[in-house]
Amino acid sequence: MSPFIAELIGTMLMILLGDGVVANVVLKDTKGHNSGWMVITTAWGLAVFVGVVVAGPYSGAHLNPAVTLALAISGKFAWANVIPYIISQFAGACLGALLVWVMYYDHFKRTNDAASILAVFCTGPALRNYVSNIASEIIGAFVLLFTIFYITGAEITPVKTPVGLGSVGAIPVAFLVWVIGLALGGTTGYAINPARDLGPRLMHALLPIKGKGNSDWAYSWIPVIAPLVGASIAAVLYLAIK
Amino acid sequence: MSPFIAELIGTMLMILLGDGVVANVVLKDTKGHNSGWMVITTAWGLAVFVGVVVAGPYSGAHLNPAVTLALAISGKFAWANVIPYIISQFAGACLGALLVWVMYYDHFKRTNDAASILAVFCTGPALRNYVSNIASEIIGAFVLLFTIFYITGAEITPVKTPVGLGSVGAIPVAFLVWVIGLALGGTTGYAINPARDLGPRLMHALLPIKGKGNSDWAYSWIPVIAPLVGASIAAVLYLAIK
Amino acid sequence: MSPFIAELIGTMLMILLGDGVVANVVLKDTKGHNSGWMVITTAWGLAVFVGVVVAGPYSGAHLNPAVTLALAISGKFAWANVIPYIISQFAGACLGALLVWVMYYDHFKRTNDAASILAVFCTGPALRNYVSNIASEIIGAFVLLFTIFYITGAEITPVKTPVGLGSVGAIPVAFLVWVIGLALGGTTGYAINPARDLGPRLMHALLPIKGKGNSDWAYSWIPVIAPLVGASIAAVLYLAIK
Amino acid sequence: MSPFIAELIGTMLMILLGDGVVANVVLKDTKGHNSGWMVITTAWGLAVFVGVVVAGPYSGAHLNPAVTLALAISGKFAWANVIPYIISQFAGACLGALLVWVMYYDHFKRTNDAASILAVFCTGPALRNYVSNIASEIIGAFVLLFTIFYITGAEITPVKTPVGLGSVGAIPVAFLVWVIGLALGGTTGYAINPARDLGPRLMHALLPIKGKGNSDWAYSWIPVIAPLVGASIAAVLYLAIK
Repeated sequence: MSPFIAELIGTMLMILLGDGVVANVVLKDTKGHNSGWMVITTAWGLAVFVGVVVAGPYSGAHLNPAVTLALAISGKFAWANVIPYIISQFAGACLGALLVWVMYYDHFKRTNDAASILAVFCTGPALRNYVSNIASEIIGAFVLLFTIFYITGAEITPVKTPVGLGSVGAIPVAFLVWVIGLALGGTTGYAINPARDLGPRLMHALLPIKGKGNSDWAYSWIPVIAPLVGASIAAVLYLAIK
Repeated sequence: MSPFIAELIGTMLMILLGDGVVANVVLKDTKGHNSGWMVITTAWGLAVFVGVVVAGPYSGAHLNPAVTLALAISGKFAWANVIPYIISQFAGACLGALLVWVMYYDHFKRTNDAASILAVFCTGPALRNYVSNIASEIIGAFVLLFTIFYITGAEITPVKTPVGLGSVGAIPVAFLVWVIGLALGGTTGYAINPARDLGPRLMHALLPIKGKGNSDWAYSWIPVIAPLVGASIAAVLYLAIK
Repeated sequence: MSPFIAELIGTMLMILLGDGVVANVVLKDTKGHNSGWMVITTAWGLAVFVGVVVAGPYSGAHLNPAVTLALAISGKFAWANVIPYIISQFAGACLGALLVWVMYYDHFKRTNDAASILAVFCTGPALRNYVSNIASEIIGAFVLLFTIFYITGAEITPVKTPVGLGSVGAIPVAFLVWVIGLALGGTTGYAINPARDLGPRLMHALLPIKGKGNSDWAYSWIPVIAPLVGASIAAVLYLAIK
Repeated sequence: MSPFIAELIGTMLMILLGDGVVANVVLKDTKGHNSGWMVITTAWGLAVFVGVVVAGPYSGAHLNPAVTLALAISGKFAWANVIPYIISQFAGACLGALLVWVMYYDHFKRTNDAASILAVFCTGPALRNYVSNIASEIIGAFVLLFTIFYITGAEITPVKTPVGLGSVGAIPVAFLVWVIGLALGGTTGYAINPARDLGPRLMHALLPIKGKGNSDWAYSWIPVIAPLVGASIAAVLYLAIK
């Protein structure tokens, strides 16, 4: 599997599962309706786990332009591959959101609340204050990237786990995403990943969903720019103190 | 232990624990009554974990005809063993459902709601629309099988974990099933396994349960056929891109 | 550390944490009051984890007379050590329950409900029917012991995990206890361990707790006898099919 | 990275995530508002996980003066480094609390309840009784430290996990903190760490938070002294029985 296909498929699976759990919790008449923050954050942590399991040995499983940027800054990833990786991640995120729409089609039809429909696809702030929202996304992405450097020793390159241990080595990043959601997701819903937010938001705009309302483009640049800033700060700090 | 006994016992334990948690959550007067989607999905993930721990070194722990089929398609499992494996899985699933009935016998007697009683045994759609329900089960089984190929490198053959690490290598598949439940279980209840659904449904039809209602045979073919389709797609895609 | 001290301390820690979570959930004015079945079962799984981490390398971390009996039957543990192990386990369980009482002293004083007070110490059936209750405890203990045989290959002897992996090898047994609680705990509260139930019940009878009511001695023999029966069945089946 | 920087950054991340989850659960209008004890305790366990992942290979990841003291008593850590480690831990805890305030700034502004605001920063007793509260914190810290000795064989020195396993070796301490929260956090909110409590309490006193009320200095010495006592008892018992 080429690294670009791996990024695409890994991000697709991550968004299918991550946006899927939001669909399960917020759309009407699902089996997991209103099952709460624990359900959402656990599934997002494990959604990243699945993406890493599949893409890890082939692309390093960035699945996130902020990860790709931080690794390039740190000198661990070739700048020439940055744009192709990011394109793959966006394409995968769009595909994942499309699958969520297919899967929960009947539940979308029954949901009248435009805010809930948008929430399945992308993040939005609990309280709209762009300065605070940017700060939140910077801090969230900083914690993600800075810790990733130490999970892997910044060697986010294809590494095979020992035979018989399956994909156990992908658990730490799942736990990291889990706790970021639990602890830091309360303000903006923790995009911490431009592809995770902008790709599905684009699908929200394009797909024919009844009563979907607007795609909140006014907010859309924050989950793109702020995670890249947070990731860059993490990379610079990592280089400064290592 | 022969691989066929391993499949039977592993599937039995998986269904005892998986159908058991549904009994605990939906039947009357249990200690876990109404404890929610997190309880159900966590237990199903761990139910698969237990099945894999026990059967893994002897049969590869398919526990699911969709897994057996996908591995045969991918060339990793002998076609001659497909039918015996599937028979073992169905027998194990029936036995597991029987044990749940024995264990929660008094609680079945107190539960008047036929839908709850059926839900202990097998899945049913949140919204009945066969096209959507089939799509859901195909997507769920695709995610399960496609990821399993990368958890194990498609070498789902008896592998011993290193001494002192117990059964840690079985954790990734548990996490995979956990997140499929959390994220993709909201529509049809994620059968993603023909034996898991049809075996207990048969037991529901056979066992003398007061007020049990019908076994919803009209729906029963979907959790059999759709997971096999999803698993086949996963195997073909895996072969195409590997 | 001698194996007998290890069993005592490991069981003490397990009961302190396991009975502690019940105190947190059922006693009045605690921070975890009414936080539900997920909290109780997660903590019990992890309580066993802690006991295994501490006692594992010294005694094999049985922490449960049913484990000791099953290992002796299977020929993996010397019969001469069975009684000393069980005495250590009971002593540890009593000590653990004492610590829970010390820790939650003020909350016991504020709790008027005798059933809640007893629930902190020992199990009781959701529906009192001794035949069903015995069946439940037999099935629960069977799943525990039968799976333990395959977690460890029945080599429950002191095993060091590889350097740098800490106590990761103890996770599978924690997950096993977690799922038994989630799925099979709904009927009798899953004692599955004579020391876990009888030791704290004795402390309940002895400690001067206001409004504590009786210790339900009429039921007390079931969580002692039934787990030993379930464990024996597991050992015999393990020997028969291995 | 020097060990002192590692302690500072590791503790900062731990407090950002640990106090962050409390902010998410208790402050107004957050996405995780009132999401319960499971959310808080899971995040605290994983917050420690993140701190250990980052600081582990450089400082041993004490992140807690009680850990530093217990290791010094046990002879595994140089007394000369005790004070510098503790200073780093307090500085990190203050920084972490500052970041939580920045991140949840708008939510602090909307929260009128002084007790909730204080709870984000530091612990307080469910029932105020200094003798019982001290006992609770001693028992909690004892369980933490005593188990840590056996997780690591008291070799809490920089240890690299095997290549390809990432930071899996840090999971057991996360599970330990998780269960302490679930089971023993019901009385005082489980400080079990002087830096975790006093550093953020100081930030609470210093930061300009509207309607914040007093910082409960009358209670503040208990989560400092009692964890050190509990840790010392654990170290002495460890030495006595090893």
